[in-house]
Amino acid sequence: MLCKDIYSALTPVLARYDSEQVCVVCDANVSFESPYPTLTLAVSEQNKSLERVSRIWDFFFEHGLTRRGVVIAVGGGVLTDIAGFAAATYKRGVDYINIPTTLLAMVDASSGGKTGINYHGLKNSIGAFAPPVDTLIWPGWLKTLPVHEFLSGYGEMLKTGLLNTKLWPQFLQYDLDTMDLEALTPLIEQCLAVKGRIVAADPRDSGRRKVLNLGHTFGHALEEISMQNATDSHPMPHGYAVVYGLIAEVYLSVIKTHCPKEPLQQLTQLMLHYYGKPQCKCSDRERLIALMQQDKKNERTAEINCTLLRSVGSPLINQVISPDEASEAFDFLFSL
Amino acid sequence: MLCKDIYSALTPVLARYDSEQVCVVCDANVSFESPYPTLTLAVSEQNKSLERVSRIWDFFFEHGLTRRGVVIAVGGGVLTDIAGFAAATYKRGVDYINIPTTLLAMVDASSGGKTGINYHGLKNSIGAFAPPVDTLIWPGWLKTLPVHEFLSGYGEMLKTGLLNTKLWPQFLQYDLDTMDLEALTPLIEQCLAVKGRIVAADPRDSGRRKVLNLGHTFGHALEEISMQNATDSHPMPHGYAVVYGLIAEVYLSVIKTHCPKEPLQQLTQLMLHYYGKPQCKCSDRERLIALMQQDKKNERTAEINCTLLRSVGSPLINQVISPDEASEAFDFLFSL
Repeated sequence: MLCKDIYSALTPVLARYDSEQVCVVCDANVSFESPYPTLTLAVSEQNKSLERVSRIWDFFFEHGLTRRGVVIAVGGGVLTDIAGFAAATYKRGVDYINIPTTLLAMVDASSGGKTGINYHGLKNSIGAFAPPVDTLIWPGWLKTLPVHEFLSGYGEMLKTGLLNTKLWPQFLQYDLDTMDLEALTPLIEQCLAVKGRIVAADPRDSGRRKVLNLGHTFGHALEEISMQNATDSHPMPHGYAVVYGLIAEVYLSVIKTHCPKEPLQQLTQLMLHYYGKPQCKCSDRERLIALMQQDKKNERTAEINCTLLRSVGSPLINQVISPDEASEAFDFLFSL
Repeated sequence: MLCKDIYSALTPVLARYDSEQVCVVCDANVSFESPYPTLTLAVSEQNKSLERVSRIWDFFFEHGLTRRGVVIAVGGGVLTDIAGFAAATYKRGVDYINIPTTLLAMVDASSGGKTGINYHGLKNSIGAFAPPVDTLIWPGWLKTLPVHEFLSGYGEMLKTGLLNTKLWPQFLQYDLDTMDLEALTPLIEQCLAVKGRIVAADPRDSGRRKVLNLGHTFGHALEEISMQNATDSHPMPHGYAVVYGLIAEVYLSVIKTHCPKEPLQQLTQLMLHYYGKPQCKCSDRERLIALMQQDKKNERTAEINCTLLRSVGSPLINQVISPDEASEAFDFLFSL
């Protein structure tokens, strides 16, 4: 739910719980004042691990949190994914509230009930479906968001835009040079409405929800390679990977399912103008393809399953891609 | 479901899955032949840990198990609890089938959807509600079950018996000296039917299902202390702890909720004849009470919440016990 003030939005949600049974898990780079016990955690895709989950469980035990209590998760998508998984498995599940503080977390991670951690370098490969009792979205957090994080969130919005004929032209019109929050707020709202309808129809990701995976089969592989390759602490932001994945998958849509070329050109322009080219080498291609064959979205071992487009607003789920086709899509992406 | 042969019972259940997408997790002391990849695991209450869960996840990844696959868990309750939790969190949840091989697992762990591990010495304090797609019960496994494991399972059956006026006299009549399987089978079936009705009405243990916790508030604490105290690998079997817990809680039922003394006398006789006295010292009392205050069944911090009886067949949930009352119940139990 969009709100103008986090504290006044929290009050009615917390009224359902004993005030001694509230624990906060807060991202280290966010400031969130509250009277409740708070665990501040530095998180990243690299340490989105079982070890962080254990830290959170320990904190819950120390504060005597019972199953009737509630956890408030404040931060980006990595934080809300980890804290959500810790809450989902603590004493077989305690309620939690998400307060996403990045654009990516607002439009993606914080709603829909997917929680989890990375395991053996595979993104979100251990986790649970456990929706938060509420998600409070305050666009004010975005005023101080670094530009690359803003763009990362917008990459995920672009994906949702491609699923809806009304949204896509609005998303192309939004001015990424000024990043005006007032103009962005109704777009966030529409994004959440589109996602909410899809998730409600298929909460466990077995059918229709797969349309939300557009861009993510190739995107996840690029992100994982980047995590493995990154020598510093700055691998590819998730939403950048989604933009690159969208280009690869819309390219395949053009050649396999007769999608018009226009959205591919529009995406390519946005990428070149704002996101830059992916930092991957052609020699990564084999590892990328192997990673896609391990993707949890696959229905069979070693098969690459992805969502393609017939056109903007008309996604096609469960499209099987051959390794040669995958290779060709990477060639296209890396040649831009 | 009760079956006469595991393999013919499995066939229709497995027909729903790709035969290359079946993984077996099998208790080290059980022999189970199948054409599927099998991980054999030695498990116990002491190593019912995150480390075992990781072993199972690794095995699933090695064999390329996808979300459309299925896991067969074969073994006692510790094995099915760990494997069920691993399945529930692998790629946010893969189907699993339980094949319980001990009486305790048949009547308790393998149905009802509770999965989990011990954490910081607290039983099942990390876990998930994730029911198996099927539970196949073949009483033939019990022919070679050690006597103390048989008695442990029967302890859990006694608890279910106390919840039902028709079952209780049948359970008292069953001859524990001969342990005849043919006479036992209909009792297992009735036990599962009683449990099934209760779980269906409250799958997440927030209300009516708490009647199944009878004996478990005191029982879990005794079991945890025994795990902490055990210098060898033989702590108190779960069902023994339940019998001791039932005695403590039925004692409290007599003094607090006017339960007749008869079931307390019947339980005490069974205990002295078959189970022996609990291996706990009066000096453990303070630690036992502290453990009960940490129990995940509690609704508030530091409160001891338990299920008592008004009479056989009439359980009362959410009864709050003071530390003094808990102490008195332990005195009674330790003085027998």
